[in-house]
Amino acid sequence: MKIQFLGTGSGVPSTNRNLSCVALKLLDERNEIWLFDCGEGTQQRILRTSLKPRKVNKIFITHLHGDHIFGLPGFLSSRAFQGGDTPLTIYGPKGIKNFVLTSLRVSQSHLRYPIFFHEIEEEGLIFEDKQIKVHCAKLAHGIPSYGFRIEEADYPGELLVDKLKADRVPAGPIYGKLKNGESVTLEDGRTINGNEYIGQSVKGRIITILGDTKRTPNSTKLAMDADVLVHESTFSKENQQIAREYFHSTCMDAAKVAKESNSKQLYLTHISSRYVGKDQLQLQKDAQSIFPNATLVNDYDEFDIPLNK
Amino acid sequence: MKIQFLGTGSGVPSTNRNLSCVALKLLDERNEIWLFDCGEGTQQRILRTSLKPRKVNKIFITHLHGDHIFGLPGFLSSRAFQGGDTPLTIYGPKGIKNFVLTSLRVSQSHLRYPIFFHEIEEEGLIFEDKQIKVHCAKLAHGIPSYGFRIEEADYPGELLVDKLKADRVPAGPIYGKLKNGESVTLEDGRTINGNEYIGQSVKGRIITILGDTKRTPNSTKLAMDADVLVHESTFSKENQQIAREYFHSTCMDAAKVAKESNSKQLYLTHISSRYVGKDQLQLQKDAQSIFPNATLVNDYDEFDIPLNK
Repeated sequence: MKIQFLGTGSGVPSTNRNLSCVALKLLDERNEIWLFDCGEGTQQRILRTSLKPRKVNKIFITHLHGDHIFGLPGFLSSRAFQGGDTPLTIYGPKGIKNFVLTSLRVSQSHLRYPIFFHEIEEEGLIFEDKQIKVHCAKLAHGIPSYGFRIEEADYPGELLVDKLKADRVPAGPIYGKLKNGESVTLEDGRTINGNEYIGQSVKGRIITILGDTKRTPNSTKLAMDADVLVHESTFSKENQQIAREYFHSTCMDAAKVAKESNSKQLYLTHISSRYVGKDQLQLQKDAQSIFPNATLVNDYDEFDIPLNK
Repeated sequence: MKIQFLGTGSGVPSTNRNLSCVALKLLDERNEIWLFDCGEGTQQRILRTSLKPRKVNKIFITHLHGDHIFGLPGFLSSRAFQGGDTPLTIYGPKGIKNFVLTSLRVSQSHLRYPIFFHEIEEEGLIFEDKQIKVHCAKLAHGIPSYGFRIEEADYPGELLVDKLKADRVPAGPIYGKLKNGESVTLEDGRTINGNEYIGQSVKGRIITILGDTKRTPNSTKLAMDADVLVHESTFSKENQQIAREYFHSTCMDAAKVAKESNSKQLYLTHISSRYVGKDQLQLQKDAQSIFPNATLVNDYDEFDIPLNK
């Protein structure tokens, strides 16, 4: 599992920071890529990465501001052009379907794959399978803006083969039953319980990706014990007042959420174009004074999200 | 008057060629910039030029395919963000208003300037003032696609001051009247005609910018005697069949239109991403075999359009 930042700017693009997009790369886990927001120019950013548009099968939209959605019609069209023919689901606030369908209809874009829309009507679980659950909750940005909590299921422990050998349990199909935690009667008459031969399970990872917001309790709830928290950091600590007025966060707000939620790693993104050079690094330094594992990210930055072994 | 190419690719962007956009820079003439098409990523291209979005007051859309319009909502929003507060007019096929207004409404983008829409219903004159006329006509692209002919008014001749002096016409306010072609009675009783003291007028320039199309008679009509013809050249001469099937042109089609129309300069754009390196130059060479003043353009290329003195 990896996370790659395709656009780390805010509002308007700069030559260094494009508009919002985060890619969660679940290639080893599911051979899938999930995008979070899709600002204008996302498909051009993708051209300079190894990401395959056809592997993107879910796009989560945090909110409908243009810098988070205007790249969607172009990405969807190019995905078809580049051989994408499998279904794709878009999760987002009410209105996203109208925007996408109007754009595709007016431009007479005929995609070769179905798009499913999940317009978020209430907070809670919006996706679940055996491997992953996604919850969302409302943030505080003036217009409906959501945060997403992606929870991976725990990995079951491995079968303790050395212990089985030591106890002279013969190898064979019964190993499969033991691994499932079943009880098995051996040829020598002994009955053994699979659970005693399974190692410790490994906690699944928790990734929290928030839309634009000022500080609000839901941010902390969504990020509780997260391995990775992606939080906007539009403004510096000197601009706390402006940040609050415009329903945005400072680097300090983001760091406080990371600390309160006991997150392991904080990525600061959605950086205003007013901060260049050293000023950007100051945002990171200031955040680190509250939460040491704070990293200000740049376009194309990619990070591993390791399992907690 | 200058012309700058902001996006010279076709269909999908490549790392070198972005999606369609041409800027006609009328800075000396009107302190205005006119855009022709606005593919996704146009605003990011503009960031790397000296173009000021607030000076863009007209956008002409040739047709509604996504690679020609998906940059419009972002450009319009950023223009407001960057201090643009003067009106802007969008000319284009029916449907462009719905796309723009839906995008702005869904994204809750509140611009600080009015947008006027001129949805093209029939061929002919779509803009006229003392300085410039714009005509449009339908091309052949499967969906409504237009070409635009921008005609500058002739520049009146200059007052022949040396000739006036030689004829002992005293300098003064009457020079203004003579320059307007009026007759004037001098103090010495002579009556002279201004038209005899005005040099030759200078022909206004003609710029023809065509949307996507296969070869069609209207292209030649729109380009007749043009100083500059911008013509798509999606395919090479080997792909004539494909070009026709997809309602596109080869470099040869473009060159034939330039020759038939007696254009002075042909710019080849909308180049398929399949042509890279030497293959691109071959498109230019092949076009030059028919029309020597053919130039294959790249993103950011800028050319002067000199007056015909």
